[in-house]
Amino acid sequence: MTTTNISALTNEIRQRIQEARQRVSALHAELPRWELVVWTAGNVSERVYVSETNKPSNDDVFVIKPSGVNYENLTPDSMVVCNLNGDLLEGNYSPSSDTAAHAYVYRNMPEVGGVVHTHSTYATAWAARGEEIPCVLTMMADEFGGPIPVGPFAIIGDNSIGRGIVETLRKSRSPAVLMQNHGPFTIGKDAKAAVKAAVMVEEVARTVQIARQDGEIIPIPQESIDRLYDRYQNVYGQ
Amino acid sequence: MTTTNISALTNEIRQRIQEARQRVSALHAELPRWELVVWTAGNVSERVYVSETNKPSNDDVFVIKPSGVNYENLTPDSMVVCNLNGDLLEGNYSPSSDTAAHAYVYRNMPEVGGVVHTHSTYATAWAARGEEIPCVLTMMADEFGGPIPVGPFAIIGDNSIGRGIVETLRKSRSPAVLMQNHGPFTIGKDAKAAVKAAVMVEEVARTVQIARQDGEIIPIPQESIDRLYDRYQNVYGQ
Amino acid sequence: MTTTNISALTNEIRQRIQEARQRVSALHAELPRWELVVWTAGNVSERVYVSETNKPSNDDVFVIKPSGVNYENLTPDSMVVCNLNGDLLEGNYSPSSDTAAHAYVYRNMPEVGGVVHTHSTYATAWAARGEEIPCVLTMMADEFGGPIPVGPFAIIGDNSIGRGIVETLRKSRSPAVLMQNHGPFTIGKDAKAAVKAAVMVEEVARTVQIARQDGEIIPIPQESIDRLYDRYQNVYGQ
Amino acid sequence: MTTTNISALTNEIRQRIQEARQRVSALHAELPRWELVVWTAGNVSERVYVSETNKPSNDDVFVIKPSGVNYENLTPDSMVVCNLNGDLLEGNYSPSSDTAAHAYVYRNMPEVGGVVHTHSTYATAWAARGEEIPCVLTMMADEFGGPIPVGPFAIIGDNSIGRGIVETLRKSRSPAVLMQNHGPFTIGKDAKAAVKAAVMVEEVARTVQIARQDGEIIPIPQESIDRLYDRYQNVYGQ
Repeated sequence: MTTTNISALTNEIRQRIQEARQRVSALHAELPRWELVVWTAGNVSERVYVSETNKPSNDDVFVIKPSGVNYENLTPDSMVVCNLNGDLLEGNYSPSSDTAAHAYVYRNMPEVGGVVHTHSTYATAWAARGEEIPCVLTMMADEFGGPIPVGPFAIIGDNSIGRGIVETLRKSRSPAVLMQNHGPFTIGKDAKAAVKAAVMVEEVARTVQIARQDGEIIPIPQESIDRLYDRYQNVYGQ
Repeated sequence: MTTTNISALTNEIRQRIQEARQRVSALHAELPRWELVVWTAGNVSERVYVSETNKPSNDDVFVIKPSGVNYENLTPDSMVVCNLNGDLLEGNYSPSSDTAAHAYVYRNMPEVGGVVHTHSTYATAWAARGEEIPCVLTMMADEFGGPIPVGPFAIIGDNSIGRGIVETLRKSRSPAVLMQNHGPFTIGKDAKAAVKAAVMVEEVARTVQIARQDGEIIPIPQESIDRLYDRYQNVYGQ
Repeated sequence: MTTTNISALTNEIRQRIQEARQRVSALHAELPRWELVVWTAGNVSERVYVSETNKPSNDDVFVIKPSGVNYENLTPDSMVVCNLNGDLLEGNYSPSSDTAAHAYVYRNMPEVGGVVHTHSTYATAWAARGEEIPCVLTMMADEFGGPIPVGPFAIIGDNSIGRGIVETLRKSRSPAVLMQNHGPFTIGKDAKAAVKAAVMVEEVARTVQIARQDGEIIPIPQESIDRLYDRYQNVYGQ
Repeated sequence: MTTTNISALTNEIRQRIQEARQRVSALHAELPRWELVVWTAGNVSERVYVSETNKPSNDDVFVIKPSGVNYENLTPDSMVVCNLNGDLLEGNYSPSSDTAAHAYVYRNMPEVGGVVHTHSTYATAWAARGEEIPCVLTMMADEFGGPIPVGPFAIIGDNSIGRGIVETLRKSRSPAVLMQNHGPFTIGKDAKAAVKAAVMVEEVARTVQIARQDGEIIPIPQESIDRLYDRYQNVYGQ
């Protein structure tokens, strides 16, 4: 059970929260930029480690978007801070209505440092069909290591969305899950990685559907998927 | 019958009109921003309550876009003011050619404070097929509470468009109607809410069509739709 | 036969050319803005009347985009001026490779004051099928007065493109023609009207195809098309 | 075998490298502008001739994007320089993970001065089907001189991507190849020409697929393709 009292945090942890507010606020701009959201939909969160050693614990907190605020009005100060039960600890607004799902993921997947949820069009279209996206692109093998799985139908109000996300992702290499009739949730080591996964899941959902609408798509052999995934996770980038 | 004489209005009401001019002018920028309109198509209006208690009456007026003016030239001063018969009361331009439809809605739906009309692509595509959009997304249950209905074929020149909008919306929880072969009209408690519905109807029309183009979509049980709609209307936002 | 010698023009006519350079240069920005062109494709031209009474004549000239120049480098001064044979009269660049087609239209349709050519995606897709766009949207009845016709397959190098445009448009109320395997050409009383038609033909091509991809579209009765067209041409705008 | 030692280059060659850094950095902005890439995907490179006579040689070097750096952070200084074996000669970052494929092309096609790789949506969709794009648009005859061919399935890690590109392009007039399950690679006399080909291959892939999704497309006779290609390569532009 989380028991964090925000006023008891050290200055160092408070500084980490302030930096996370800035990162999370700035990363929200990536969602409309890549056309993943309309109006106020979509949200990004990031875990703040409260242990001095930066190890995950159930006393961690996370920074998340306030509910129903327009993207152009988001600032570091308008972000809100919750504990891993999803209770509001600090902020002038109510937290995102998806806060319980983010909190469930952080509580149950200690390796996750960032979570993103959108209703991006093509990913949501696959979710409305309840169909996983087959791995037919090399960039998809790189990023997702296989198909992008579908999670169960679950509606807001209890832990069923969070549980559906966690149970589905635990059985997959993919950092993205398509919640049925709902939309994609993505995870990452931090908020930036989860945003990247949200951008890539839409791109892949779009490309694979467009490919399949006009003919037969060619599968990639599992061995090649494995080699691409291994290489990308270990070599790519700086 | 409306009898409003603009010069007889109190300073307070004139101030309300001025504020509505600013809001309606600014909200027009949302239409090209979300790619709902091309060239000069599309219009937003907002009711101004003339009673001191802010209750709707047939003496109310509304602020609407002038006809055939480019979006980049719209300013608070270029907006026009009409009474609920659609007669021009104040303004340097002719009112939008859709003014009669807006006026009919305000006259017959006193709870409506804002109206928007666009020809947004996917919503208009459903309208060209005369087909309602089935409720297969949780965000659609949230916002529309069920399918988005189709209104009758009606052409400009009398009350038939306005009557078609009102008769269709009265039988539905949806704030959007797809007028057959024409395009969507949306309503809200104010102009901003009607613009949000216009943005969401296009997003939903697009996502559901894309989902269905490539396979079977999964329906959402009515009970879940009802729970989502109830929660969203009463809990969401600040 | 046109014989215009640019140095013999009066100051008034030269002033008209200068104003047309500014309008045509500015209108080119509408093409990428509405996503009708990529790279340097697409061109806009406008007739300049050389008669003092502003009546069309074969001594008129027209202002057109130079060939292969990027959109961000277009300025009033980089526009070029041609006579109605398509010969370069004034300018530092070669005229657009489509100049002969524009010239043919101005020579043979004296009522035309502006011409636009693009390869906009959906209009070009209909052109690749050689299929006219059926009139199933009220906005299409307003603007085009019926279906948007297809012109013959013709390749650059003689008058066959221009002749195909003119022969097709003479049999239609539409200001747009889809040249087979090529793309749309649009006309108007001036360059702005032709640009508007270019924007609208793409929007209509897109909406009607998207409508039809997912089911049966409902036709509009001819009588209603006629009433909408008549009203729009005579009443709309300021 | 390339043996270039960057510190042994003359000032003139170093100046050429500096100018190529500026061009390649600026050209990367065209990729998101035309919506060919998301996040950090995609890369542009340009050959720098080290011979005084500007003739290609195996001692040439090329400027290419660093790996995994965001588009908004790309500057002339962040570009990296490699020899034709793909070894890093100069730069503060690792070279793009596609560097080996670029290097292979420069080594084996001395006439090539620029290479671009993207995962643009429609071109990649054709690649996922392993299907060449038929030549059914006049702009496609102009730019590509026929169909756009498909290269073999090949994965990163050895010369198989580069070899697939070169072997496919040698049998074609097209400056673009769709590598199966992967995406397009394009070539040109310099980086700008290769970027133009990358923009055009996506536009053509999109238009032809959209055309075909809704009916039969009309082929262009080979003789007309040949005439259009010949004219465009020799006459168009300034």
